[in-house]
Amino acid sequence: MRVQIAAVLLLAATTVICCEPETLMSRRPAVSPEGPESSQTSLSQLRSELSELRDAALSDGYAYRQVAHLTDNIGPRAIGSAQAAAAVQYVADELRKLGLEVRLEEVKVPHWMRGVETAELVEYSGQAPGTSQKIVLTALGGNTPTPADGITAEVVGVNSFDELKALGREKVAGKIVLFNVAFDKQKAANGLAGEAYGEAVAYRAGGAKAAAELGAVASLVRSVGNADYRLPHTGWSVAAGIPAGAVTSEDADLMARLTAQGRVRIHLTLTSQTGPDVLSYNVVADLKGSEHPEQVVIVSGHLDSWDLGTGAIDDAAGVAVAMEAGELVQRLHLHPKRTIRVVAWMDEENGGRGHDAYAKDHAAELANHMAAIESDNGAAHPLGFYAKMNPKALPLLKPVQDILQSFGANLIQFTDRSPGADIAPLAKAGVPTLGIMQDARTYFNYHHTAADTLDKIVSQELRENAAAMAVMGYALADLPEPLPR
Amino acid sequence: MRVQIAAVLLLAATTVICCEPETLMSRRPAVSPEGPESSQTSLSQLRSELSELRDAALSDGYAYRQVAHLTDNIGPRAIGSAQAAAAVQYVADELRKLGLEVRLEEVKVPHWMRGVETAELVEYSGQAPGTSQKIVLTALGGNTPTPADGITAEVVGVNSFDELKALGREKVAGKIVLFNVAFDKQKAANGLAGEAYGEAVAYRAGGAKAAAELGAVASLVRSVGNADYRLPHTGWSVAAGIPAGAVTSEDADLMARLTAQGRVRIHLTLTSQTGPDVLSYNVVADLKGSEHPEQVVIVSGHLDSWDLGTGAIDDAAGVAVAMEAGELVQRLHLHPKRTIRVVAWMDEENGGRGHDAYAKDHAAELANHMAAIESDNGAAHPLGFYAKMNPKALPLLKPVQDILQSFGANLIQFTDRSPGADIAPLAKAGVPTLGIMQDARTYFNYHHTAADTLDKIVSQELRENAAAMAVMGYALADLPEPLPR
Repeated sequence: MRVQIAAVLLLAATTVICCEPETLMSRRPAVSPEGPESSQTSLSQLRSELSELRDAALSDGYAYRQVAHLTDNIGPRAIGSAQAAAAVQYVADELRKLGLEVRLEEVKVPHWMRGVETAELVEYSGQAPGTSQKIVLTALGGNTPTPADGITAEVVGVNSFDELKALGREKVAGKIVLFNVAFDKQKAANGLAGEAYGEAVAYRAGGAKAAAELGAVASLVRSVGNADYRLPHTGWSVAAGIPAGAVTSEDADLMARLTAQGRVRIHLTLTSQTGPDVLSYNVVADLKGSEHPEQVVIVSGHLDSWDLGTGAIDDAAGVAVAMEAGELVQRLHLHPKRTIRVVAWMDEENGGRGHDAYAKDHAAELANHMAAIESDNGAAHPLGFYAKMNPKALPLLKPVQDILQSFGANLIQFTDRSPGADIAPLAKAGVPTLGIMQDARTYFNYHHTAADTLDKIVSQELRENAAAMAVMGYALADLPEPLPR
Repeated sequence: MRVQIAAVLLLAATTVICCEPETLMSRRPAVSPEGPESSQTSLSQLRSELSELRDAALSDGYAYRQVAHLTDNIGPRAIGSAQAAAAVQYVADELRKLGLEVRLEEVKVPHWMRGVETAELVEYSGQAPGTSQKIVLTALGGNTPTPADGITAEVVGVNSFDELKALGREKVAGKIVLFNVAFDKQKAANGLAGEAYGEAVAYRAGGAKAAAELGAVASLVRSVGNADYRLPHTGWSVAAGIPAGAVTSEDADLMARLTAQGRVRIHLTLTSQTGPDVLSYNVVADLKGSEHPEQVVIVSGHLDSWDLGTGAIDDAAGVAVAMEAGELVQRLHLHPKRTIRVVAWMDEENGGRGHDAYAKDHAAELANHMAAIESDNGAAHPLGFYAKMNPKALPLLKPVQDILQSFGANLIQFTDRSPGADIAPLAKAGVPTLGIMQDARTYFNYHHTAADTLDKIVSQELRENAAAMAVMGYALADLPEPLPR
């Protein structure tokens, strides 16, 4: 998950709509082209199928096995890497095994190559003779490398873009700017993790550019995350022509304390770089609809990950629950009216080339995209869905809410922003879009760090996510009528 | 803090004695060489002074400033390092400023030099062509280095020494043994952190030796700690003639899952080593007693630290609260009957040369060591003290308990083991010894990791530790009679 989702998540504390009194069944007769009786029969059958899907998902280990293979056996899936390529083939093969029609849709992606990333404070108050202090950091995507032997410059710390501007070119040129803006732990604990992320990530994304504009020779940002284990959080940043890294919260605090005492100089080596574009793929797998095969409902997650960890919660989990939606429908021999399309997106993390390519290649068919769902907010207990769609759709979703209520995943929260980065182009084109709303209280402890590994996933919670994806995806593909645009 | 403390900490759940009904005042007349009246006056004055010390400590920032300087400005204080040398000079200077009589007592210490520490899985089930997986690890003290270009061997995982023995030389020789014994998080959460540590640390300390005896070419241990942020925990291990490292819990789990699927080979590079001994020092600073200057009460912590973090909770905090005991007594113009000796021990972490040297150099004076206190279990809220001493001493400690009760630091828990590694030789010689009993529930999240940094210390909790150290240290130095041996 990268920047775009932030503004969406912050809506988590706003209006939550879960229990629209007007039921689908009570209003259906007036609008259904079929008679009331056949519509009721159809809905009754749908409810029964959704119930089957939920129960099967809640007792199944398919998604967990997929996450385990993607993370343990393939490993980190950095954009443009051999592992990302292997993951494409693996997911395509698995979906073929399920009997889906699989296509690899070409995407040219940047090739991220992590290099040396070290830093040492070489001048500071009270320094013991002949010593330096190690700074723990990681390079950001979009980073311009330092020379192999690094650069040395004075550190100037700021707590906001306004502070940077107030310093002006005179005090910034030639320096390394440290943006020391803390992730708000209290907000995250209170269920506003997305808001906390959004506030801090602005500096990760835009800090280097703002620093470069005032002549800084490099930019460091306090890691965007709410743990305190000296763990750097990587992520994407706007290319600024200067080296850009993220230091741990501990190291940001250390530098802030030392700069308050006197001059601090740092030696910084960040040799990570982005190589020439390479060919990669979105995996697109169709389970054809029985009545309207041209009408498509997307269930998806993104297959690329940052390279520090193995990308379990971001976002092997999302891909796995989308795959399981296909697996369950096949295993239960269900035949939705519309096509269910499982998509494993490429390059969500470092530019979004995958979803851009999809939107371009499928531009002529977007009117027939009935809905798109993405899971890219971890694998913790799902509370329901964020939804960017016409609120008149809510009554149609009542059967889904009823089915998901048994494990507390029945919220539908409307939003004005795309509820997933990869489905943003679809949302912009008017396709109703949904994102699973996971409990994100601890998501940013691990997000974009080396600690995003399989053990962070609770298997039962992953099952709940698979149930939410399968039930919503199938319902949208089988409802008597499409969601209103 | 290293291995020895473990067995002590596990006593935390056993008998806790806090409120001996027989008061000091009621029994004093029978045993005091002075008349009852003067004894009561003396005790009344002592209580008043202890109360002053407590209140001053609880509103003072002296110890925090010391920790901040030791960790932020000097940094990690690995044994034999320039930072350790700088820390010796700094603490000596600060104690001289307080008016204490300071000596640097020579200690020959090993010189720990951390080198390259990397590892990659180069063969495992499901491996993508041309890829490997990074393993996060750190070298252990006592480590024998690998060649600069590393070694490659198959991994064999075990969950106990018994499992290793059962495998035998045939299945171990030429392999790299992984001891995958988890720190018991539940025990730690329940206040039994020491017991959890003791169970797991046996493998960190003795694993390499056991593996080497069966012909293993290297030993890896699951990090001993209860966090899950891909953070390796270093520490001391018995020299075994083979490379020894600690992998993170995540990497231990990964290797365990992959070895269950097939052959796993790892390329391991650990070039850390111990250089020739260098000259270092225990800092020993006396605040001379007014009546019995030859009688000594030690207040102490250890000045060396592991090098991954900056050694804030292990154990700049212990040194700082010992220093503050001296600072408070001077600032309040108190004049204890006996000598208060502030000691900053060298080399607690990697062999204990400092306390061995002290015990040897002061052998003739140990009969005049009235008591010794060490703080080496973090800087969290103190619950009271572990005590290795004649239980008949308890009534004498009643004034201390009364004073510390106001902030819940009044437990006295007797133990048969030394309540601190550095005071173990004194305990063995019959000197009454005490260790501050901190709430250790989160201590092993950070212990011996890069995340042991200043921010882990809550200033008010450090003040409580300073109060506990000052009140207990002063009381022992000023009680009408010494503790019974």
